[in-house]
Amino acid sequence: MKYIRYNKNLDYSYAMGIYPTIELLKYRSEYTVKLITHSKLKAEAGWRIVTDLCKKHNIYIENNDKFIEKISAKSNCYLAGIFTKYQTVLKKNNNQVVLVNPKDTGNLGTIIRSMVAFGYNELAIIKPATDFFQPEVIRASMGAVFNINFQLFDSIDEYLTLFPNHNFYSLMSDGENSLVKIKIKKPYALIFGSESAGLPEIYRCIGQPIRIEQSEKVDSLNLAVAVGIVLHYLGTKKQIGDLTQYAN
Amino acid sequence: MKYIRYNKNLDYSYAMGIYPTIELLKYRSEYTVKLITHSKLKAEAGWRIVTDLCKKHNIYIENNDKFIEKISAKSNCYLAGIFTKYQTVLKKNNNQVVLVNPKDTGNLGTIIRSMVAFGYNELAIIKPATDFFQPEVIRASMGAVFNINFQLFDSIDEYLTLFPNHNFYSLMSDGENSLVKIKIKKPYALIFGSESAGLPEIYRCIGQPIRIEQSEKVDSLNLAVAVGIVLHYLGTKKQIGDLTQYAN
Repeated sequence: MKYIRYNKNLDYSYAMGIYPTIELLKYRSEYTVKLITHSKLKAEAGWRIVTDLCKKHNIYIENNDKFIEKISAKSNCYLAGIFTKYQTVLKKNNNQVVLVNPKDTGNLGTIIRSMVAFGYNELAIIKPATDFFQPEVIRASMGAVFNINFQLFDSIDEYLTLFPNHNFYSLMSDGENSLVKIKIKKPYALIFGSESAGLPEIYRCIGQPIRIEQSEKVDSLNLAVAVGIVLHYLGTKKQIGDLTQYAN
Repeated sequence: MKYIRYNKNLDYSYAMGIYPTIELLKYRSEYTVKLITHSKLKAEAGWRIVTDLCKKHNIYIENNDKFIEKISAKSNCYLAGIFTKYQTVLKKNNNQVVLVNPKDTGNLGTIIRSMVAFGYNELAIIKPATDFFQPEVIRASMGAVFNINFQLFDSIDEYLTLFPNHNFYSLMSDGENSLVKIKIKKPYALIFGSESAGLPEIYRCIGQPIRIEQSEKVDSLNLAVAVGIVLHYLGTKKQIGDLTQYAN
Protein backbone atom coordinates (compact mmCIF):
# COMPACT_ATOMS: atom_id res chain seq x y z
CA MET A 1 0.00 0.00 0.00
CA LYS A 2 1.23 3.49 -0.87
CA TYR A 3 0.86 6.09 1.88
CA ILE A 4 0.63 9.75 0.92
CA ARG A 5 0.87 13.09 2.68
CA TYR A 6 -2.08 13.55 5.03
CA ASN A 7 -5.42 14.91 3.90
CA LYS A 8 -8.72 14.56 5.71
CA ASN A 9 -10.23 12.15 3.17
CA LEU A 10 -7.70 9.42 3.91
CA ASP A 11 -8.79 6.59 6.19
CA TYR A 12 -5.41 6.63 7.94
CA SER A 13 -3.25 9.28 9.59
CA TYR A 14 0.15 9.78 11.24
CA ALA A 15 1.46 10.25 14.75
CA MET A 16 4.64 12.29 14.21
CA GLY A 17 7.54 12.17 16.67
CA ILE A 18 8.53 9.93 19.56
CA TYR A 19 6.11 11.06 22.24
CA PRO A 20 2.87 10.96 20.16
CA THR A 21 3.93 7.59 18.75
CA ILE A 22 4.41 6.16 22.25
CA GLU A 23 0.85 7.22 23.13
CA LEU A 24 -0.43 5.63 19.92
CA LEU A 25 1.28 2.35 20.77
CA LYS A 26 0.16 2.45 24.40
CA TYR A 27 -3.53 3.13 23.83
CA ARG A 28 -4.37 2.29 20.21
CA SER A 29 -1.96 -0.45 19.20
CA GLU A 30 -4.83 -2.33 17.54
CA TYR A 31 -5.13 0.48 14.98
CA THR A 32 -1.39 0.90 14.42
CA VAL A 33 -0.30 -0.26 10.97
CA LYS A 34 3.46 0.23 11.20
CA LEU A 35 6.19 2.70 12.15
CA ILE A 36 8.50 4.53 9.77
CA THR A 37 11.87 5.92 10.86
CA HIS A 38 14.35 8.35 9.34
CA SER A 39 18.10 7.58 9.53
CA LYS A 40 18.61 10.75 11.55
CA LEU A 41 16.45 9.41 14.40
CA LYS A 42 18.48 9.31 17.58
CA ALA A 43 18.10 6.45 20.04
CA GLU A 44 17.08 8.76 22.91
CA ALA A 45 15.22 7.69 26.04
CA GLY A 46 11.79 7.33 24.43
CA TRP A 47 13.04 5.17 21.57
CA ARG A 48 13.52 2.20 23.89
CA ILE A 49 9.87 2.48 24.96
CA VAL A 50 8.83 2.57 21.30
CA THR A 51 10.75 -0.57 20.38
CA ASP A 52 9.52 -2.42 23.49
CA LEU A 53 5.90 -1.55 22.65
CA CYS A 54 6.37 -2.57 19.01
CA LYS A 55 7.78 -5.91 20.11
CA LYS A 56 4.91 -6.44 22.53
CA HIS A 57 2.24 -5.64 19.94
CA ASN A 58 4.07 -7.16 17.01
CA ILE A 59 4.31 -3.93 15.03
CA TYR A 60 6.77 -3.55 12.18
CA ILE A 61 9.37 -0.75 12.08
CA GLU A 62 10.63 0.30 8.66
CA ASN A 63 13.36 2.77 7.72
CA ASN A 64 12.40 5.10 4.88
CA ASP A 65 13.94 8.60 4.79
CA LYS A 66 12.14 9.74 1.65
CA PHE A 67 8.78 8.78 3.09
CA ILE A 68 9.34 10.80 6.29
CA GLU A 69 10.54 13.80 4.31
CA LYS A 70 7.49 13.55 2.06
CA ILE A 71 4.80 13.37 4.73
CA SER A 72 6.35 15.61 7.39
CA ALA A 73 5.93 19.37 7.32
CA LYS A 74 8.56 19.78 10.03
CA SER A 75 12.15 19.11 9.13
CA ASN A 76 13.15 17.72 12.53
CA CYS A 77 10.63 14.88 12.75
CA TYR A 78 12.21 11.45 12.30
CA LEU A 79 9.48 9.03 13.34
CA ALA A 80 5.94 8.43 12.09
CA GLY A 81 3.35 5.97 13.38
CA ILE A 82 0.81 5.06 10.71
CA PHE A 83 -2.64 4.23 12.09
CA THR A 84 -6.09 3.54 10.77
CA LYS A 85 -8.70 6.12 11.79
CA TYR A 86 -11.17 4.73 14.33
CA GLN A 87 -14.38 5.67 16.05
CA THR A 88 -15.19 5.66 19.74
CA VAL A 89 -18.48 6.10 21.58
CA LEU A 90 -19.03 8.30 24.63
CA LYS A 91 -20.20 6.67 27.84
CA LYS A 92 -23.60 7.50 29.30
CA ASN A 93 -22.57 8.57 32.80
CA ASN A 94 -19.16 10.19 32.45
CA ASN A 95 -18.43 13.89 32.70
CA GLN A 96 -17.90 15.30 29.23
CA VAL A 97 -16.30 18.20 27.42
CA VAL A 98 -18.31 19.49 24.44
CA LEU A 99 -16.66 21.65 21.79
CA VAL A 100 -19.02 23.44 19.42
CA ASN A 101 -17.39 24.08 16.03
CA PRO A 102 -13.72 24.11 17.07
CA LYS A 103 -11.64 25.44 14.17
CA ASP A 104 -8.07 25.76 15.35
CA THR A 105 -5.96 22.58 15.17
CA GLY A 106 -3.51 23.75 17.84
CA ASN A 107 -6.30 24.66 20.25
CA LEU A 108 -8.05 21.30 19.74
CA GLY A 109 -4.88 19.35 20.47
CA THR A 110 -4.01 21.54 23.46
CA ILE A 111 -7.52 21.08 24.90
CA ILE A 112 -7.26 17.30 24.62
CA ARG A 113 -3.88 17.43 26.40
CA SER A 114 -5.48 19.42 29.26
CA MET A 115 -8.40 16.96 29.39
CA VAL A 116 -6.12 14.01 29.99
CA ALA A 117 -4.03 16.06 32.46
CA PHE A 118 -7.11 16.68 34.61
CA GLY A 119 -8.81 13.31 34.24
CA TYR A 120 -11.42 13.97 31.56
CA ASN A 121 -11.72 11.20 28.97
CA GLU A 122 -14.85 12.08 27.00
CA LEU A 123 -14.99 14.66 24.22
CA ALA A 124 -18.04 15.51 22.10
CA ILE A 125 -17.40 17.60 18.99
CA ILE A 126 -20.28 19.38 17.26
CA LYS A 127 -19.69 19.75 13.52
CA PRO A 128 -18.58 21.63 11.50
CA ALA A 129 -15.19 21.24 13.14
CA THR A 130 -11.53 20.88 12.32
CA ASP A 131 -10.45 17.32 11.49
CA PHE A 132 -9.76 15.39 14.71
CA PHE A 133 -7.14 13.10 13.22
CA GLN A 134 -4.91 15.52 11.39
CA PRO A 135 -1.27 15.26 12.45
CA GLU A 136 -1.20 18.87 13.78
CA VAL A 137 -3.93 18.04 16.32
CA ILE A 138 -2.12 14.89 17.39
CA ARG A 139 1.15 16.79 17.80
CA ALA A 140 -0.41 19.66 19.80
CA SER A 141 -2.04 17.04 22.04
CA MET A 142 1.34 15.28 22.50
CA GLY A 143 -0.52 12.09 21.59
CA ALA A 144 -3.27 12.57 24.21
CA VAL A 145 -5.85 12.12 21.41
CA PHE A 146 -5.20 8.38 21.66
CA ASN A 147 -6.15 8.38 25.32
CA ILE A 148 -9.69 9.77 25.11
CA ASN A 149 -13.06 8.77 23.74
CA PHE A 150 -14.46 11.23 21.24
CA GLN A 151 -17.60 11.36 19.18
CA LEU A 152 -18.71 13.68 16.38
CA PHE A 153 -22.26 15.03 16.18
CA ASP A 154 -24.03 16.77 13.31
CA SER A 155 -25.82 19.11 15.70
CA ILE A 156 -26.09 19.96 19.38
CA ASP A 157 -29.64 18.50 19.33
CA GLU A 158 -28.29 15.13 18.27
CA TYR A 159 -25.87 15.28 21.19
CA LEU A 160 -28.41 16.43 23.78
CA THR A 161 -30.84 13.66 22.82
CA LEU A 162 -28.21 11.03 23.48
CA PHE A 163 -27.39 12.25 27.00
CA PRO A 164 -30.69 13.09 28.72
CA ASN A 165 -29.28 12.57 32.21
CA HIS A 166 -26.39 15.00 31.96
CA ASN A 167 -26.33 18.45 33.55
CA PHE A 168 -25.28 20.99 30.93
CA TYR A 169 -23.15 24.06 31.56
CA SER A 170 -22.51 26.62 28.82
CA LEU A 171 -19.30 28.64 29.09
CA MET A 172 -20.06 32.21 27.97
CA SER A 173 -18.00 35.32 28.73
CA ASP A 174 -21.16 37.03 30.06
CA GLY A 175 -22.66 33.91 31.69
CA GLU A 176 -24.96 34.61 34.68
CA ASN A 177 -23.08 32.29 37.07
CA SER A 178 -19.49 32.63 38.17
CA LEU A 179 -17.49 29.41 37.83
CA VAL A 180 -16.24 29.70 41.42
CA LYS A 181 -19.71 30.16 42.90
CA ILE A 182 -21.95 27.73 41.02
CA LYS A 183 -22.64 24.19 42.20
CA ILE A 184 -21.79 21.75 39.40
CA LYS A 185 -23.82 18.54 39.46
CA LYS A 186 -22.59 15.22 38.08
CA PRO A 187 -22.68 13.82 35.50
CA TYR A 188 -21.97 17.08 33.75
CA ALA A 189 -21.17 18.34 30.29
CA LEU A 190 -19.10 21.51 29.88
CA ILE A 191 -19.96 23.22 26.59
CA PHE A 192 -17.48 25.59 24.91
CA GLY A 193 -17.98 27.62 21.71
CA SER A 194 -15.64 28.35 18.83
CA GLU A 195 -12.51 30.50 18.96
CA SER A 196 -14.00 33.35 16.97
CA ALA A 197 -17.63 33.50 18.05
CA GLY A 198 -18.01 31.72 21.40
CA LEU A 199 -21.40 30.08 21.99
CA PRO A 200 -24.53 31.48 20.29
CA GLU A 201 -27.23 32.99 22.56
CA ILE A 202 -29.40 29.85 22.38
CA TYR A 203 -26.88 28.09 24.63
CA ARG A 204 -28.03 30.28 27.52
CA CYS A 205 -31.14 28.02 27.53
CA ILE A 206 -29.41 24.75 26.67
CA GLY A 207 -27.16 24.78 29.71
CA GLN A 208 -26.65 26.89 32.81
CA PRO A 209 -24.46 29.77 31.63
CA ILE A 210 -21.10 30.05 33.40
CA ARG A 211 -18.48 32.77 33.15
CA ILE A 212 -14.84 32.81 34.17
CA GLU A 213 -14.39 36.03 36.17
CA GLN A 214 -12.05 38.33 34.29
CA SER A 215 -11.21 41.98 33.70
CA GLU A 216 -13.36 43.96 31.28
CA LYS A 217 -10.11 45.00 29.64
CA VAL A 218 -10.10 41.85 27.51
CA ASP A 219 -12.88 40.63 25.29
CA SER A 220 -12.35 36.94 26.04
CA LEU A 221 -9.75 34.33 26.89
CA ASN A 222 -8.13 32.02 24.39
CA LEU A 223 -10.35 28.92 24.03
CA ALA A 224 -7.71 26.39 25.12
CA VAL A 225 -6.83 28.54 28.14
CA ALA A 226 -10.52 28.82 29.14
CA VAL A 227 -11.01 25.04 28.93
CA GLY A 228 -7.81 24.43 30.90
CA ILE A 229 -8.92 26.80 33.66
CA VAL A 230 -12.34 25.18 34.04
CA LEU A 231 -11.00 21.62 34.06
CA HIS A 232 -8.26 22.50 36.55
CA TYR A 233 -10.70 24.39 38.76
CA LEU A 234 -13.15 21.48 38.97
CA GLY A 235 -10.23 19.16 39.64
CA THR A 236 -9.02 21.50 42.40
CA LYS A 237 -12.47 21.43 43.99
CA LYS A 238 -12.17 17.67 44.09
CA GLN A 239 -8.76 17.98 45.76
CA ILE A 240 -9.60 20.43 48.48
CA GLY A 241 -13.35 20.09 48.80
CA ASP A 242 -16.25 22.11 47.47
CA LEU A 243 -15.22 25.75 47.44
CA THR A 244 -18.66 27.17 46.77
CA GLN A 245 -19.57 27.03 50.46
CA TYR A 246 -16.83 29.56 51.16
CA ALA A 247 -17.99 31.93 48.43
CA ASN A 248 -19.78 35.19 49.19
CA MET B 1 8.71 57.50 5.18
CA LYS B 2 8.36 54.11 3.51
CA TYR B 3 7.00 51.33 5.70
CA ILE B 4 7.85 47.74 4.85
CA ARG B 5 6.66 44.29 5.86
CA TYR B 6 7.53 43.61 9.50
CA ASN B 7 10.86 42.23 10.59
CA LYS B 8 12.36 42.38 14.05
CA ASN B 9 15.04 44.91 13.16
CA LEU B 10 12.54 47.65 12.37
CA ASP B 11 11.92 50.31 15.03
CA TYR B 12 8.18 50.23 14.30
CA SER B 13 5.50 47.52 14.08
CA TYR B 14 1.84 47.00 13.23
CA ALA B 15 -1.35 46.31 15.15
CA MET B 16 -3.44 44.40 12.60
CA GLY B 17 -7.25 44.41 12.74
CA ILE B 18 -9.88 46.48 14.54
CA TYR B 19 -9.58 45.11 18.07
CA PRO B 20 -5.78 45.26 18.46
CA THR B 21 -5.80 48.76 16.92
CA ILE B 22 -8.38 49.95 19.47
CA GLU B 23 -6.09 48.75 22.29
CA LEU B 24 -3.13 50.52 20.68
CA LEU B 25 -5.09 53.79 20.51
CA LYS B 26 -6.46 53.39 24.04
CA TYR B 27 -3.18 52.66 25.83
CA ARG B 28 -0.30 53.72 23.58
CA SER B 29 -1.63 56.60 21.49
CA GLU B 30 1.59 58.52 22.09
CA TYR B 31 3.49 55.88 20.07
CA THR B 32 0.91 55.59 17.29
CA VAL B 33 2.16 57.02 14.00
CA LYS B 34 -0.94 56.61 11.80
CA LEU B 35 -3.62 54.15 10.71
CA ILE B 36 -3.90 52.55 7.28
CA THR B 37 -7.19 51.16 5.97
CA HIS B 38 -8.16 48.92 3.05
CA SER B 39 -11.22 49.76 0.94
CA LYS B 40 -12.81 46.47 1.99
CA LEU B 41 -12.88 47.54 5.65
CA LYS B 42 -16.48 47.51 6.87
CA ALA B 43 -17.74 50.18 9.25
CA GLU B 44 -18.67 47.67 11.96
CA ALA B 45 -19.19 48.45 15.64
CA GLY B 46 -15.52 48.82 16.53
CA TRP B 47 -14.78 51.20 13.67
CA ARG B 48 -16.66 54.04 15.39
CA ILE B 49 -14.43 53.56 18.46
CA VAL B 50 -11.34 53.71 16.24
CA THR B 51 -12.36 56.96 14.54
CA ASP B 52 -13.35 58.57 17.86
CA LEU B 53 -9.98 57.66 19.40
CA CYS B 54 -8.11 58.93 16.32
CA LYS B 55 -9.98 62.23 16.54
CA LYS B 56 -9.24 62.51 20.26
CA HIS B 57 -5.53 61.82 19.83
CA ASN B 58 -5.17 63.61 16.50
CA ILE B 59 -4.06 60.51 14.58
CA TYR B 60 -4.23 60.40 10.80
CA ILE B 61 -6.13 57.67 8.92
CA GLU B 62 -4.99 56.88 5.39
CA ASN B 63 -6.51 54.56 2.79
CA ASN B 64 -3.93 52.41 1.01
CA ASP B 65 -5.02 48.99 -0.28
CA LYS B 66 -1.62 48.02 -1.68
CA PHE B 67 0.10 48.78 1.59
CA ILE B 68 -2.27 46.57 3.60
CA GLU B 69 -1.93 43.75 1.08
CA LYS B 70 1.85 44.07 1.24
CA ILE B 71 2.32 43.99 5.00
CA SER B 72 -0.50 41.60 5.97
CA ALA B 73 -0.03 37.85 5.91
CA LYS B 74 -3.76 37.32 6.40
CA SER B 75 -6.03 38.14 3.50
CA ASN B 76 -8.93 39.32 5.65
CA CYS B 77 -7.19 42.07 7.58
CA TYR B 78 -8.22 45.57 6.49
CA LEU B 79 -6.77 47.83 9.16
CA ALA B 80 -3.25 48.43 10.41
CA GLY B 81 -2.07 50.74 13.18
CA ILE B 82 1.56 51.74 12.74
CA PHE B 83 3.39 52.40 16.00
CA THR B 84 6.91 53.10 17.16
CA LYS B 85 8.38 50.40 19.39
CA TYR B 86 8.72 51.51 22.98
CA GLN B 87 10.20 50.38 26.25
CA THR B 88 8.57 50.12 29.65
CA VAL B 89 10.03 49.46 33.08
CA LEU B 90 8.63 47.04 35.67
CA LYS B 91 7.54 48.43 39.02
CA LYS B 92 9.32 47.42 42.20
CA ASN B 93 6.39 46.14 44.21
CA ASN B 94 3.95 44.63 41.74
CA ASN B 95 3.31 40.94 41.23
CA GLN B 96 5.06 39.78 38.08
CA VAL B 97 5.00 37.05 35.47
CA VAL B 98 8.44 35.92 34.29
CA LEU B 99 8.83 34.00 31.03
CA VAL B 100 12.19 32.32 30.52
CA ASN B 101 12.99 31.95 26.80
CA PRO B 102 9.46 31.93 25.36
CA LYS B 103 9.64 30.86 21.71
CA ASP B 104 6.10 30.55 20.41
CA THR B 105 4.49 33.79 19.20
CA GLY B 106 0.94 32.50 19.70
CA ASN B 107 1.68 31.37 23.26
CA LEU B 108 3.29 34.69 24.16
CA GLY B 109 0.30 36.67 22.90
CA THR B 110 -2.17 34.31 24.57
CA ILE B 111 -0.31 34.58 27.90
CA ILE B 112 -0.43 38.38 27.78
CA ARG B 113 -4.20 38.20 27.08
CA SER B 114 -4.63 36.00 30.18
CA MET B 115 -2.47 38.36 32.25
CA VAL B 116 -4.71 41.33 31.51
CA ALA B 117 -7.82 39.18 32.03
CA PHE B 118 -6.71 38.32 35.57
CA GLY B 119 -5.24 41.67 36.56
CA TYR B 120 -1.50 41.12 36.01
CA ASN B 121 0.27 44.04 34.36
CA GLU B 122 3.97 43.24 34.68
CA LEU B 123 5.86 40.84 32.42
CA ALA B 124 9.58 40.07 32.57
CA ILE B 125 11.03 38.21 29.59
CA ILE B 126 14.41 36.48 29.89
CA LYS B 127 16.27 36.37 26.57
CA PRO B 128 16.68 34.67 24.16
CA ALA B 129 12.98 35.01 23.38
CA THR B 130 10.61 35.54 20.52
CA ASP B 131 10.20 39.16 19.44
CA PHE B 132 7.63 40.88 21.70
CA PHE B 133 6.41 43.35 19.08
CA GLN B 134 5.85 41.10 16.09
CA PRO B 135 2.32 41.41 14.68
CA GLU B 136 1.53 37.71 15.43
CA VAL B 137 2.10 38.28 19.17
CA ILE B 138 -0.05 41.41 19.10
CA ARG B 139 -2.85 39.57 17.27
CA ALA B 140 -2.79 36.54 19.61
CA SER B 141 -2.95 38.96 22.55
CA MET B 142 -5.92 40.77 20.95
CA GLY B 143 -3.97 43.95 21.60
CA ALA B 144 -3.43 43.22 25.32
CA VAL B 145 0.32 43.81 24.76
CA PHE B 146 -0.41 47.53 24.81
CA ASN B 147 -1.93 47.27 28.26
CA ILE B 148 1.02 45.80 30.18
CA ASN B 149 4.50 46.80 31.25
CA PHE B 150 7.18 44.48 29.97
CA GLN B 151 10.93 44.40 30.29
CA LEU B 152 13.59 42.27 28.62
CA PHE B 153 16.54 40.84 30.56
CA ASP B 154 19.73 39.27 29.27
CA SER B 155 19.73 36.71 32.08
CA ILE B 156 17.70 35.60 35.08
CA ASP B 157 20.48 36.98 37.34
CA GLU B 158 19.99 40.44 35.91
CA TYR B 159 16.28 40.15 36.68
CA LEU B 160 16.72 38.77 40.21
CA THR B 161 19.17 41.53 41.16
CA LEU B 162 16.63 44.19 40.23
CA PHE B 163 13.85 42.75 42.41
CA PRO B 164 15.40 41.71 45.73
CA ASN B 165 12.11 42.04 47.62
CA HIS B 166 10.06 39.68 45.46
CA ASN B 167 9.11 36.14 46.44
CA PHE B 168 9.96 33.82 43.57
CA TYR B 169 7.97 30.75 42.53
CA SER B 170 9.22 28.41 39.81
CA LEU B 171 6.57 26.45 37.91
CA MET B 172 7.93 22.95 37.28
CA SER B 173 5.92 19.87 36.38
CA ASP B 174 7.62 18.01 39.25
CA GLY B 175 7.72 20.95 41.68
CA GLU B 176 7.70 20.02 45.38
CA ASN B 177 4.71 22.20 46.25
CA SER B 178 1.20 21.87 44.89
CA LEU B 179 -0.24 25.16 43.62
CA VAL B 180 -3.41 24.66 45.64
CA LYS B 181 -1.58 24.03 48.90
CA ILE B 182 1.27 26.51 48.97
CA LYS B 183 1.01 29.94 50.56
CA ILE B 184 2.01 32.56 48.00
CA LYS B 185 3.50 35.72 49.53
CA LYS B 186 3.30 39.16 47.92
CA PRO B 187 4.92 40.73 46.06
CA TYR B 188 5.53 37.61 44.02
CA ALA B 189 7.06 36.60 40.72
CA LEU B 190 5.75 33.51 38.90
CA ILE B 191 8.50 32.02 36.73
CA PHE B 192 7.65 29.83 33.73
CA GLY B 193 10.03 27.99 31.39
CA SER B 194 10.00 27.54 27.63
CA GLU B 195 7.49 25.47 25.64
CA SER B 196 9.95 22.74 24.81
CA ALA B 197 12.14 22.41 27.88
CA GLY B 198 10.35 23.96 30.88
CA LEU B 199 12.62 25.44 33.53
CA PRO B 200 16.18 24.09 34.03
CA GLU B 201 16.92 22.37 37.36
CA ILE B 202 18.68 25.46 38.78
CA TYR B 203 15.26 27.13 39.12
CA ARG B 204 14.45 24.74 41.95
CA CYS B 205 16.82 26.89 44.02
CA ILE B 206 15.93 30.26 42.50
CA GLY B 207 12.28 30.08 43.50
CA GLN B 208 10.01 27.78 45.48
CA PRO B 209 9.09 25.03 43.00
CA ILE B 210 5.35 24.73 42.31
CA ARG B 211 3.50 22.09 40.32
CA ILE B 212 0.01 22.08 38.87
CA GLU B 213 -1.49 18.75 39.96
CA GLN B 214 -2.11 16.62 36.88
CA SER B 215 -2.32 13.07 35.64
CA GLU B 216 0.88 11.20 34.94
CA LYS B 217 -0.63 10.34 31.58
CA VAL B 218 0.60 13.63 30.13
CA ASP B 219 4.12 14.93 30.18
CA SER B 220 3.17 18.58 30.69
CA LEU B 221 0.53 21.18 29.93
CA ASN B 222 0.73 23.68 27.13
CA LEU B 223 2.62 26.75 28.44
CA ALA B 224 -0.18 29.27 27.83
CA VAL B 225 -2.67 26.93 29.52
CA ALA B 226 -0.38 26.49 32.54
CA VAL B 227 0.06 30.27 32.94
CA GLY B 228 -3.70 30.83 32.55
CA ILE B 229 -4.47 28.24 35.25
CA VAL B 230 -2.04 29.75 37.78
CA LEU B 231 -3.19 33.35 37.20
CA HIS B 232 -6.86 32.35 37.41
CA TYR B 233 -6.26 30.27 40.50
CA LEU B 234 -4.52 33.10 42.38
CA GLY B 235 -7.32 35.44 41.26
CA THR B 236 -9.89 32.93 42.52
CA LYS B 237 -8.18 32.82 45.90
CA LYS B 238 -8.59 36.57 46.05
CA GLN B 239 -12.29 36.21 45.23
CA ILE B 240 -13.26 33.55 47.71
CA GLY B 241 -10.52 33.77 50.28
CA ASP B 242 -7.43 31.73 50.89
CA LEU B 243 -8.13 28.13 49.97
CA THR B 244 -5.00 26.66 51.46
CA GLN B 245 -6.59 26.50 54.92
CA TYR B 246 -9.08 23.97 53.56
CA ALA B 247 -6.41 21.82 51.98
CA ASN B 248 -5.40 18.51 53.48
